[in-house]
Amino acid sequence: MNSNDNLPTEVVSAIRQVVGNGKHTLHQPSFSSLEVSMVSECIESTFVSSSGYFVDKFEKSLAEYTGANFAVAVVNGTSALHLALNVAEVSAGDEVLIPALSFIATANAVSYCNAIPHFVEVESETLGIDADKLERYLVSICELRDSECFNRITNRRIRALVPMHTFGHPSNLERLLEVCKQFNIVLIEDAAESLGSLYKGKHTGTIGTMGVFSFNGNKILTTGGGGAVVTDSQELARKLKHLSTTGKVSHKWEFNHDVIGFNYRMPNLNAALGCAQFTKLTKFIESKRELYLRYKSAFLQIDGITLFGEAKDTYSNYWLQTIILDESVAHQRDSILQQTHEVGLMCRPAWTLLSDLEPYFETPRMDLSFTRSLASRIINIPSSPDLIG
Amino acid sequence: MNSNDNLPTEVVSAIRQVVGNGKHTLHQPSFSSLEVSMVSECIESTFVSSSGYFVDKFEKSLAEYTGANFAVAVVNGTSALHLALNVAEVSAGDEVLIPALSFIATANAVSYCNAIPHFVEVESETLGIDADKLERYLVSICELRDSECFNRITNRRIRALVPMHTFGHPSNLERLLEVCKQFNIVLIEDAAESLGSLYKGKHTGTIGTMGVFSFNGNKILTTGGGGAVVTDSQELARKLKHLSTTGKVSHKWEFNHDVIGFNYRMPNLNAALGCAQFTKLTKFIESKRELYLRYKSAFLQIDGITLFGEAKDTYSNYWLQTIILDESVAHQRDSILQQTHEVGLMCRPAWTLLSDLEPYFETPRMDLSFTRSLASRIINIPSSPDLIG
Repeated sequence: MNSNDNLPTEVVSAIRQVVGNGKHTLHQPSFSSLEVSMVSECIESTFVSSSGYFVDKFEKSLAEYTGANFAVAVVNGTSALHLALNVAEVSAGDEVLIPALSFIATANAVSYCNAIPHFVEVESETLGIDADKLERYLVSICELRDSECFNRITNRRIRALVPMHTFGHPSNLERLLEVCKQFNIVLIEDAAESLGSLYKGKHTGTIGTMGVFSFNGNKILTTGGGGAVVTDSQELARKLKHLSTTGKVSHKWEFNHDVIGFNYRMPNLNAALGCAQFTKLTKFIESKRELYLRYKSAFLQIDGITLFGEAKDTYSNYWLQTIILDESVAHQRDSILQQTHEVGLMCRPAWTLLSDLEPYFETPRMDLSFTRSLASRIINIPSSPDLIG
Repeated sequence: MNSNDNLPTEVVSAIRQVVGNGKHTLHQPSFSSLEVSMVSECIESTFVSSSGYFVDKFEKSLAEYTGANFAVAVVNGTSALHLALNVAEVSAGDEVLIPALSFIATANAVSYCNAIPHFVEVESETLGIDADKLERYLVSICELRDSECFNRITNRRIRALVPMHTFGHPSNLERLLEVCKQFNIVLIEDAAESLGSLYKGKHTGTIGTMGVFSFNGNKILTTGGGGAVVTDSQELARKLKHLSTTGKVSHKWEFNHDVIGFNYRMPNLNAALGCAQFTKLTKFIESKRELYLRYKSAFLQIDGITLFGEAKDTYSNYWLQTIILDESVAHQRDSILQQTHEVGLMCRPAWTLLSDLEPYFETPRMDLSFTRSLASRIINIPSSPDLIG
C-alpha cells in the first residue's frame, strides 16, 4: 500500500495549478448575452410552450450537427431514453443490458417500461461496456428463440443494449454492434454525456438504432432541462414525436389520441436557450480538450493517479475530467474528496454501482468485479468550459 | 329541430362583438418586460436547471397563494398527476375513478402507474363529476374489504378519485369528498385548469389529499412547460419531492437512490417565467371574469346557446370561456367550428370522451349517456387574458 499521505494535498495543488484560486463547481454552464437575447425573443413571441420556432430550430441543429437524419427534442434525457426504449419495443418483462456504472436514469428508464435492467461490466479503456466480456457472458447465458435473444436463466427476452458514453468518452461501439448483431439485440446509445464526441469519426448517438442526449444544466450544452432522441429512421422518428406529444392525432380541432403517449415535448423556452448554446458548442469542446491537456500536465508528477484520456478510435468532448486512482492509493479517495470540498473545489466520485442501489438489488447482473474496483477509484474534477478563458 | 341556419354566423358575430377584428387564438399567454427581466436574471445566475432561487420562490408563491402547506414544482401537469397517484399508493391493477370528459393526461397518468382508469359521468351544473350518480353507481358495484374499496365486477381495488375542474370551473367537491369518505377512496384534484378558482372560498387543489396544477403555455399562468402538486401533508410533500428528484438521498458527493424515482423537477429557467406570471395572476383572473360578462351579454340574444357560468358555491377563474348548444342545435357544432376557423377565430370542441379513445376502449365505465350528450354540445371560444385591455 502506497503511504503517500500527501496525496489529497497534491491533488488540490494540481487542480489549483489549472483552475487558479477561488471556489469551483464541478461543472457550470457558460452563458453570454446571446442566451438572454434568444430567450427574450422567445418570450416576446408568446410561443414558450410545446411548439414553436426554437424547438424546430433546435432539432434541426442537433440533426445537422450530429449527422442524424432526425432529432426529437424532449423534456430531459430520462424521458428521451424512456421514449427510445418504448419505440424499440422494449416490453414488460423484457431485460435490457446496461452498464453497472451509470447514472440511475439509465436503469429507471428501463423500469418505466416495466422491463428489467441487467447490469454488465465496463472496461478501463473507455469506461464503457466491455464488449469482449459481454460477448462471452451472453454466449454462456443466452439462446436465440425464433431469432429473439432469451436469457436461459431468467427465461426473459433480452431486447436491447444501452451503452452509456461515460463522462463523454465513447464506448467501443464497433464491437458492441457486433455483439448486438450476433444476438439480435437493439443498440440504443445513452449519449447523455457525449454530445460532440466521435467514434471512428462518427458522432456518438448516431451509431446505434437510436441515440439519446441530455441537456440538463450540468451538460456540455444546456436547455435548463432537456433531452433528445436522434435516429436515421423516419418511421422511428415519427413514432418518437407522436409518443412525445401525447399520441395526439393531427386535426384542426379534434382531440383524438391513438396510443398512451407522454407529455414529453421540450418547451420552446428551453429550446431557445439551447439554440444560443449550440452556436458555442465547438468552442466548449475545444475548451474542454484544452483543459484536459492542462490537467494532464499538472497531474503528470503525481504517483498513483492517472488523468483519463480518450481511447483509440475516439474523439472525446471531455465533458467531465476524470482522475483514476491506482489500487495502491484507492483507500485515499474519500480523503481527497473531503479535502477538495473543504477548499472549495467541487469533486465527485463515480456513481454508486446501479446494481448496488436498493431498487435494483434483485436484478440480474454478470460478474462486476472490475467495474466495482474501477468505480471506487474514479474522481471527477472541476470541468466547466469557462475554466479556459 | 331548430332550423336556425344562421347560427354559425350569429356565433361569429357575438364573438366579434367582444374580441373585435383580426385573428384570435383560443388562449395565448400575456407577457411583459417583467417575464423577460426575471428569465434574464435566471440565465445570468447560471442556475437554469433543476434547482435554484426561482424554483423555491415559485413553490413558495404557489403554496401561499392557494393556502396549501406545501407545493412541489415539476415539468408538467401530467408528471404532477403521475407523482400524486404514486404517492397516494395507486398500484398496478388498481382502478382510479376519473371523469370521461377530460384531457387524455388524466387517464394516462393512471396508466403510467399500471392502474386502470374507470370513467364516470359529469353533470351540467359544474361540467365535473356528478357526485350523486357516482354514489349510486359505487353503491351498486363496490364493497369494502378490510376497509378498502373493491369493484365487485372486476375484483380490482378502487384506490382514488380524480375530479377534474373543467375549463376552470370547480367540481362539487363537498359531495365528492363525502362519497370518497364513504368508500375510503383518496381524492386527488386535477386542478390543471383551475388555478385561482375557489370552492366555498377555498382554493381548488387544496381540498383533496393532493391537488395538481399545470402551467403549460395555454394555461392561466405559464412556465412554458410546468406543473405542481400541492398538499397539506409534510410527509406526502417529502415523498413528492424525493420522487421528483430521482429518489436521490442527500449527500455532499455520493449518489445513492433508495427508490425508482423520476426526473420531474421543474427547471429554474421555467420557474423564473412563472414567478413573473404570478405577480399578474389576480389581474388575469379579473380579465377573464370580465370577458365572461362581455360574452354573456353578446350571447344573450342567441337562441339555443348558453354561455357557461360558475355554479353555486364556486368562484371560477374562467380559464376557457365555454358555450353550450341546446340539443336542438347540437347538429350545428361542426358548422360553427368550421365558420369560426375560416374567419380566424380559434374555437374548439370538448375532448373526445376518454372512454371513446382507442387506448381506453376496454376500460370500465358507468353509463355515460349524459356526458356524451353534453360533450358533443360544448365549444370553447377565444379566452386570452389580453382580450380585456
